[in-house]
Amino acid sequence: MPPMSAPIVVQKFGGSSLADADRIRRVARRIARERALGSQLVVVVSAMGDTTDELISLAAAITDEPDSRELDVLLATGEHQSATLVSMALHALGVPAISLTGAQAGITTDGRYGRARIANVDPRRVQAEVAAGRVVIVAGFQGMSASASDGLVAAVDDTSPDSATRQASPHALIHAAETTTLGRGGSDTTAVALAARLGADRCQIFTDVRGIYTADPRLLPEARKLDVIGYEEMLEMAQSGAQVMQQRAVELGWVNNVVIEVLSSFEDAPGTLIKEDPFVEQRNKVRGLAHDRNVAKITVVDVPDRPGVAHAIFAPLADAGVSVDVIVQNVSHGGTTDMSFTVTRTDLAKARRILEPVARTLGAREITTDLSVAKVSIVGAGIQNAPGYAARMFEALAKAGVNIEAIATSEIRITCLIGEDGLEPALRSLHAAFELEQPDQIDAAGAPVARASSVGA
Amino acid sequence: MPPMSAPIVVQKFGGSSLADADRIRRVARRIARERALGSQLVVVVSAMGDTTDELISLAAAITDEPDSRELDVLLATGEHQSATLVSMALHALGVPAISLTGAQAGITTDGRYGRARIANVDPRRVQAEVAAGRVVIVAGFQGMSASASDGLVAAVDDTSPDSATRQASPHALIHAAETTTLGRGGSDTTAVALAARLGADRCQIFTDVRGIYTADPRLLPEARKLDVIGYEEMLEMAQSGAQVMQQRAVELGWVNNVVIEVLSSFEDAPGTLIKEDPFVEQRNKVRGLAHDRNVAKITVVDVPDRPGVAHAIFAPLADAGVSVDVIVQNVSHGGTTDMSFTVTRTDLAKARRILEPVARTLGAREITTDLSVAKVSIVGAGIQNAPGYAARMFEALAKAGVNIEAIATSEIRITCLIGEDGLEPALRSLHAAFELEQPDQIDAAGAPVARASSVGA
Repeated sequence: MPPMSAPIVVQKFGGSSLADADRIRRVARRIARERALGSQLVVVVSAMGDTTDELISLAAAITDEPDSRELDVLLATGEHQSATLVSMALHALGVPAISLTGAQAGITTDGRYGRARIANVDPRRVQAEVAAGRVVIVAGFQGMSASASDGLVAAVDDTSPDSATRQASPHALIHAAETTTLGRGGSDTTAVALAARLGADRCQIFTDVRGIYTADPRLLPEARKLDVIGYEEMLEMAQSGAQVMQQRAVELGWVNNVVIEVLSSFEDAPGTLIKEDPFVEQRNKVRGLAHDRNVAKITVVDVPDRPGVAHAIFAPLADAGVSVDVIVQNVSHGGTTDMSFTVTRTDLAKARRILEPVARTLGAREITTDLSVAKVSIVGAGIQNAPGYAARMFEALAKAGVNIEAIATSEIRITCLIGEDGLEPALRSLHAAFELEQPDQIDAAGAPVARASSVGA
Repeated sequence: MPPMSAPIVVQKFGGSSLADADRIRRVARRIARERALGSQLVVVVSAMGDTTDELISLAAAITDEPDSRELDVLLATGEHQSATLVSMALHALGVPAISLTGAQAGITTDGRYGRARIANVDPRRVQAEVAAGRVVIVAGFQGMSASASDGLVAAVDDTSPDSATRQASPHALIHAAETTTLGRGGSDTTAVALAARLGADRCQIFTDVRGIYTADPRLLPEARKLDVIGYEEMLEMAQSGAQVMQQRAVELGWVNNVVIEVLSSFEDAPGTLIKEDPFVEQRNKVRGLAHDRNVAKITVVDVPDRPGVAHAIFAPLADAGVSVDVIVQNVSHGGTTDMSFTVTRTDLAKARRILEPVARTLGAREITTDLSVAKVSIVGAGIQNAPGYAARMFEALAKAGVNIEAIATSEIRITCLIGEDGLEPALRSLHAAFELEQPDQIDAAGAPVARASSVGA
C-alpha cells in the first residue's frame, strides 16, 4: 500500500481505452504499475467504446425527443459499468480498488440535464477510500443535482403525515437526488475537478492520441506533438475544433492551476503538459493549427442596413441555444446588406426554421446556406498583438490557392472560413509557413530560444 | 390524470416483455390503457431481454471471481436503462412518467450483495410522484444498503477535519449509500414490496406465460392455467421448480396479504391470482405438478452407521452455502450404510470438492454422483393429511414405468426423485391421475364443488 503521504495522481481513461475486456485489463495493469511506483490513485473512466452512442440510439428508437432527465440516467449507466469492470480487473491483479458513482464521489452539479456544471466536490468518501489503501475508480461524466434534490426533498417531506420527518429525514435526500451528466467529454471535467479538490500532483488524461499536436495528425502527417501548451492556447485549440479535451475541463484546470497531461493509453511515452507557461509571452509564436468541419454558413441576403437588424437576427438564435460564429456584414449597397455567419451543421435546420419568419419580417430577399465550408485557425499566445501573423496566414492560404470567405479573431487566435475542399492544402501550407514541424528550442533555463523565423520575436 | 383517490396498481414487467424498442413501446401502450381506466400506476421493470446475463458475461471476461459489490453496481444498470426507456416511451404517448432507481424509490436492504433482502420501503418519493399525476417507473431487482451506508458515513466523517460535519452532513449519506441487488427474479420482490407498502389494490406480474399452470405447458400440452392458487401452494410450486415467480416475492405477498396476479404481457387475458384462499382446505386437492431438472444425486457409499455421521456430511455443505434436498439414508447392513441426497447441478463440483476429505475421514468407501435424475412433485394444500395422495402418486409413476429413487414430503407437497428420462411420462401420468386437466368447479358462493375423483373429499 502506498504511504498515506504519497502524492495523489488522478488518471482519466477514455472510451476507446476501455473498449473491451482486453483493453480494460491493459488499463488495470497500467494503473497497477503506477501504484507500484508509490502513488495514491484516483481513476476517472468514460463509458466503454461506443456505449454512449449506443445508448443514445436505444433512446432514439423509442422516441424522437427523449426527456433530458431520463436520458441522463440512461447515459450515466455507461460509466457505472466501466467503473465496476476496471475495479474488478484491479482486484484480479490483487490491487485493492472500489468503484464510485459520481454521486458517491461527492460530485454535485446544477440541474441542467445533459450539460450540467459541477457545483462542488465533497471529497470525503474518495479521501476515506484512498486512505484505506484503495484505488478509487470514479464514474466520469456525471454528478448529482443538489438543487433539484433540495426542491424534491421538500416535496417528498410535504407528503409525509408526520411533520417531524421534515427535520429528521436525511434519507429523503437520497430518494430525491437526481443523476445529471456533464455533456460530451465530461469525464475530462470530472478528472480535473477531482484533481483540483484533492490537491493532486498530476491529472493525466489518457486517450487514443499521444498528446496535443500542431495540427490534426490524421490529416497532416508532419504534425508534431507539443511538449507543453498553455491553458489559454489549449482552450482556443479546443474551441476551434481540436477534439482531444473538453473545453470546460481546460478552463477548470486553468482556474485551479491543475497541471494536465494528455497522453496515449496505448504506449508508454510522455504526452503534452497543459499548464501555466511563464514563457508564453516571450515565445510569441504560433503553437498549432485547429480546424473544424462541423460548420455551415448562413447568409441573410439583402436585409435593410439599419440599426437593430443584427439584434433581430441573432437574439432569437441565442434564445434557442444556437451558437453563432464568424459573423460578416457586407458593405451596404443601395440601403441593403448581406449578413453572413456560421453555425454548426447540426444546428443548421433549427437555425433556418428560426430565421425564416425573421427574414420575412425584416424584408430580406432570401436565406442561403452553404455546407461546403470549414474553419481553419492559427493559435498562439500574443499573436493578436503582432500583426505580422495575420498577413503571413493570408499569404500562406493564397499560396495554397485557398479563398478566404470570412475572418474572425480572438486574443490568441485567427480563424479563416474557407471552402471545405481547401482544408488540407490550407493546413499543409500554414504548417510549413509557421514552421510547426520544428521542435521548440528551449534554453538551459527552460525559456524558448527565439528563432529567426518567429514573427515579431 | 386519475383522481387522487384512484386505486394504486403495481405492475411488473419482466425482461422478455422489454427485450427491444418495439416491446418497450407495447408495454408503454398497455400501461397507458390501464391508466386511462383510472388507475394510479407504479410500474416495476426488469432489465431488457438478456441484459443481466450479458453483463455477467462481461464481468466473467474480466475476472473469474467478480467482487460482489462491484457486480451489484454493474447489474443494477440493466434496470436503470429499461426504466428510463419505458418512461421515455410513455412520454412519447403523452403520459407523464418518471423513472426512479431502487434507491430513489426508497428501497433499503441489508448489505448482502447479490442476494440482499429488502429491509424497508420509504414510499414518500413514489407517493409524491404519483400524487403529481405521474406514472412511476421503478428499477426492479435493486435497493440501497442502509447498514453499509451507516458504517461508511462514520468512516467518511472521520476524515473530515471539521468535527461539526459529523452532525450536519446529510449529503454524506448519499456518498456512502451502496447499491445492492436482490438476486434472480428480484424485480418480483420489488413489485410486491411496493404494493404492500403503498397499499395497492393489485400487484400484476407480467411475464411471458399466461399464468400458473397445473404443469409446465412446454412439456405437457394438456396443462391447464389455474385461475387461483394459494400462497403456500405457490411457494411449493416455486420451490419445486416452477420458475414463474421468485419465491421470496410470494412469501412477502403472503405475509402482507398482497393479491398477486401473474399474467402474459403479450395478450389481454386474465392470468392466475395468487391469494389467501379460504376454500383451500375444503378443496383438498392436488393443484399442480412441479418439476426440476437442475438436480444431481450424490451418494456417500459405505459410511459407518453411527451417530454424528449426518452432521459430519451436511454441516460443511451448509457452511459453504450448498443447499441439500431429498436425503435418504439406506438401511444399515454390516455396520455401514449409504447416504444419498440431491444438490443442484451447478453446486455438484463444489459439493464433491467439500465431501472428498469428509468421506476419507469417515472411512467411507467412495462418493458416487448421478446427473441423470430429476424431481417431480405434486402440490396441494392439505395433501399431507390425506395419505391417499401418496399412494395414488406412486401408482401413477408405476403405471408410467418410472422408478422412484427417493421420496421427500412437506405439508403440502410430495416429491419423488426419478430418472430424468422418465420425467415426461411421469408428468403425463400424474396429470391424468389427478385429473388436472379438469377445470375447478366453483359453486355460487365461490366454494369448490367436491368431485367424486377428489381423494379425501
